[in-house]
Amino acid sequence: MNNFQFYNPVHIEFGKGQISKLSKLVPANAKILMTYGGGSIKRNGVYDQVKEALSGHTLIEFSGIEPNPKYETLMKAVEIIRNEKIDFLLAVGGGSVIDGTKFISAAVNYEGDPWQILAHRDVSGIKDPLPIGAVLTLPATGSEMNGNSVVTKAETKEKLAFGTPAVMPKFSILDPEVIYSLPKKQISNGIIDAFIHVLEQYLTYPVNSPIQDRFAESILATLVEEGPKVYAEPTNYDAAANFMWAATMALNGLIGVGVPQDWSTHMIGHELTAFHGIDHGRTLAIVLPGVMRVKQENKREKLLQYGERIWNITEGTFEERLELIIAKTEAFFHSLETPTRLSDYEVPASTIDKICDRFEQRRITAFGEQGDTDIQQLRMILEDRL
Amino acid sequence: MNNFQFYNPVHIEFGKGQISKLSKLVPANAKILMTYGGGSIKRNGVYDQVKEALSGHTLIEFSGIEPNPKYETLMKAVEIIRNEKIDFLLAVGGGSVIDGTKFISAAVNYEGDPWQILAHRDVSGIKDPLPIGAVLTLPATGSEMNGNSVVTKAETKEKLAFGTPAVMPKFSILDPEVIYSLPKKQISNGIIDAFIHVLEQYLTYPVNSPIQDRFAESILATLVEEGPKVYAEPTNYDAAANFMWAATMALNGLIGVGVPQDWSTHMIGHELTAFHGIDHGRTLAIVLPGVMRVKQENKREKLLQYGERIWNITEGTFEERLELIIAKTEAFFHSLETPTRLSDYEVPASTIDKICDRFEQRRITAFGEQGDTDIQQLRMILEDRL
Repeated sequence: MNNFQFYNPVHIEFGKGQISKLSKLVPANAKILMTYGGGSIKRNGVYDQVKEALSGHTLIEFSGIEPNPKYETLMKAVEIIRNEKIDFLLAVGGGSVIDGTKFISAAVNYEGDPWQILAHRDVSGIKDPLPIGAVLTLPATGSEMNGNSVVTKAETKEKLAFGTPAVMPKFSILDPEVIYSLPKKQISNGIIDAFIHVLEQYLTYPVNSPIQDRFAESILATLVEEGPKVYAEPTNYDAAANFMWAATMALNGLIGVGVPQDWSTHMIGHELTAFHGIDHGRTLAIVLPGVMRVKQENKREKLLQYGERIWNITEGTFEERLELIIAKTEAFFHSLETPTRLSDYEVPASTIDKICDRFEQRRITAFGEQGDTDIQQLRMILEDRL
Repeated sequence: MNNFQFYNPVHIEFGKGQISKLSKLVPANAKILMTYGGGSIKRNGVYDQVKEALSGHTLIEFSGIEPNPKYETLMKAVEIIRNEKIDFLLAVGGGSVIDGTKFISAAVNYEGDPWQILAHRDVSGIKDPLPIGAVLTLPATGSEMNGNSVVTKAETKEKLAFGTPAVMPKFSILDPEVIYSLPKKQISNGIIDAFIHVLEQYLTYPVNSPIQDRFAESILATLVEEGPKVYAEPTNYDAAANFMWAATMALNGLIGVGVPQDWSTHMIGHELTAFHGIDHGRTLAIVLPGVMRVKQENKREKLLQYGERIWNITEGTFEERLELIIAKTEAFFHSLETPTRLSDYEVPASTIDKICDRFEQRRITAFGEQGDTDIQQLRMILEDRL
C-alpha cells in the first residue's frame, strides 16, 4: 500500500435518544447559530429535541439551506455570524446542511472573497474556522465525519468542493431514528451515495491493501443487505442503524488510506445536478455504469474482485463478467426505485456537450485514478448512459 | 447494535521513511522525554532516525522500560519529568513502551499515589496528562492508536490496566520497515495479540452489527493471510505493512463500538505473565481455546460465524464444528511456532489455584460478556489448557 496520513478527531455519539447529549457537547456559554434546511426537522421532532437539549443556551436560527447548498444562501449566514458574534455552529440536517455549515465556518474569518475557497480550493487561507457540531438527519454523504464540503453557486450553476480537517465537526450525533420519517427517495439516494463513495475509493487498481479492500467490501455488502430492508421498512431500527453507520464509514477517510482513488463519477454527477437539478445520489447511479464500462481496462482487476466478493460472479470471460457486474449493480439501484439512464430523467443529449465544454473550460482534461480519462472518454461515459 | 461513543483523535503517519516527520509533529520548543526499552532501537537504526529528526530539540532520554512495563521503573521517569520540567513524551517502542509512557503521562500531575490509577482505575483523578507522541517499533498491542495501558507492579506481581482518551497519543508514526529486524518471536506474538484483540470484541453474541462484524472478520482474515508471510519473510514490505495496519485497526476502538466484548482471555493471560513471565501474546494463545470450549454455549452463534467466515467450516454438528474451529485456530498459532498448552511452558497445575485465588481476592467472580464466568469456569478454562 502507499504511504498515508489518517486523522479523524470527530467525536461520534451514536444511537437512540442521543440528541439529548447536546447540552454536554456544546461548549457552555457558546453563542450558537443553529443551521438547518427546509423545516423537515420541525415535522420529525428533531427540532424540538435540539431546542429542549439546548434550552438555556443562546441560540440563533438560520434555516433555508437548500439541497445542494447555495453559496449565496450561505453567505447570508456568514453576515449574521459577523454581526451577532456567533462562536459555535450547530448543523442540524443531512449532508447539504453540514456541507454548507462547513463553508460558513471557513468563510467567516477568510480574508478576501470566500468564493476562492471553492474556486481555487484555497484551504490554506482559512483562518480561525468556527467550531461545528452536527446532528445528522439523513445518512448519505459522510459529511458528519469528514472535512469535505460541496457548494453550488446559483449564479453560474457551478458545483464545487473543498476539504480540510479544519472544518471537521467537533462532534456528530447519529440517531438512527431520524430515518423513520424520511421520504423514501432520500433513503434510496443515501444508500446509493454511500455505496458509490466506497466504489470511488475501491474500484481502481490493486496496491496490496487487504484491510482497506476488505473494509470497503464490508460496507458494500452491508449496504446491499441492509439497504433494501431500511428502504422497505424505514422504522426497522437495526436496518436503519446499520445503514447509518455504513454511510458514515463510507467516507470518513478510513477505507481510502494508502490506496488510489477515482472521483470521476462524482465529478461528472455534479454537473448533472448543476444543469438539471437531479438529486446527487441519482446522478451517481446514472454515471457509474458508464465509468465501469469505459474505464474497464484500468479497473479490470478490481472490477473482477468487486464482482466476485459482492455479487458472487466467478465465471465467464471478462466481457461477460463485466456486463453481469454492471447489470447486478444497476439492478441494485433499480431495486431502490432509482433509474440509471439519462433518458429516465429527460436529460437531452445536448447536455453531454455542455458537460464536456465545462470540463475543458476548467482544464479538467485528464482525470481518474490513472489521470488518463480525457474529454473523449468523458463523452463516451455519458453517451453510454443516454 | 447498542448505542455507542467513538472518539479517536490520534494522527497516524504510516509508511516508509515517515520517522523523519517527527520534526513537524513534535511541538516547537517542547522539552522532550524520549522513552524506550532495552536498546533494540539502537541496533535497528530507529534511534538514529529519531535523534536526527529531532536535532535542535531539547531531548532527554529515559531507557529501560521493560516488556510488561514495571510501575517501579515508570515512577523513576515521573521523577525526572517533575525535576526537568519536561512537557512532551516521545515513546519509541512497542506496546510496553507506549503503555508505560501513558502511565507516566497520567502519573506526573496525579494528586495522591499514582498506583490508584491502576488499582482503582481512577482515571477521573488524572490531571493535565503530558502529551504523547509515539514511534511504533513492534505491531501488536494497538497502543499506538488507543488510550489503554497495562502496567505491572513487580513488588506484588500484579498486572493491571487503565484506559482513558486523555492519554491517547497525539500522533503515532507507523513505519513497517521496523519489522525487518524484529526477532521472529516478537512477530508471532504480535500477530497473535492482534488476532485475539479482534476475537475479544467479536466472539460474544450477535447484536445485528454487520459493519463491526465484517470489519472484525476483515482483520482476522488479513492476519491469517499476511501473518505467515511476514513471519516467514520479515522484509516483505507489503506483508509487514498489512500486518502493521491490521494490528492497529484491531484495537483502536472501531470494531468494538456498539457490540458486547469479552476480555476474559486477556484477564487470565495477564496472570500467566505475572506469575511465569510468559510473553503476553503466548499467554493468549494458551488461554483462548479454553475460553472457546468452556464458554461455547454463550458464544455459540459467533463461534459458528467465525468458523464459517474465517476457516470455511460449514458442516457437521456444533460439537464437531467447535472442535474443528479450535483445532484450526491452534494450528494457526502453531504455524507461527507458538505452543498453546500450559505444559509447553512448564506451568504447573498449582498455578491454576493461584490464579483462581487471585481472581477471588480481587472479587472478579463474574466476568465475560454475559457476566456469568465464575471461578469454577475459570478453573475449567485453565484445566483445559494443561
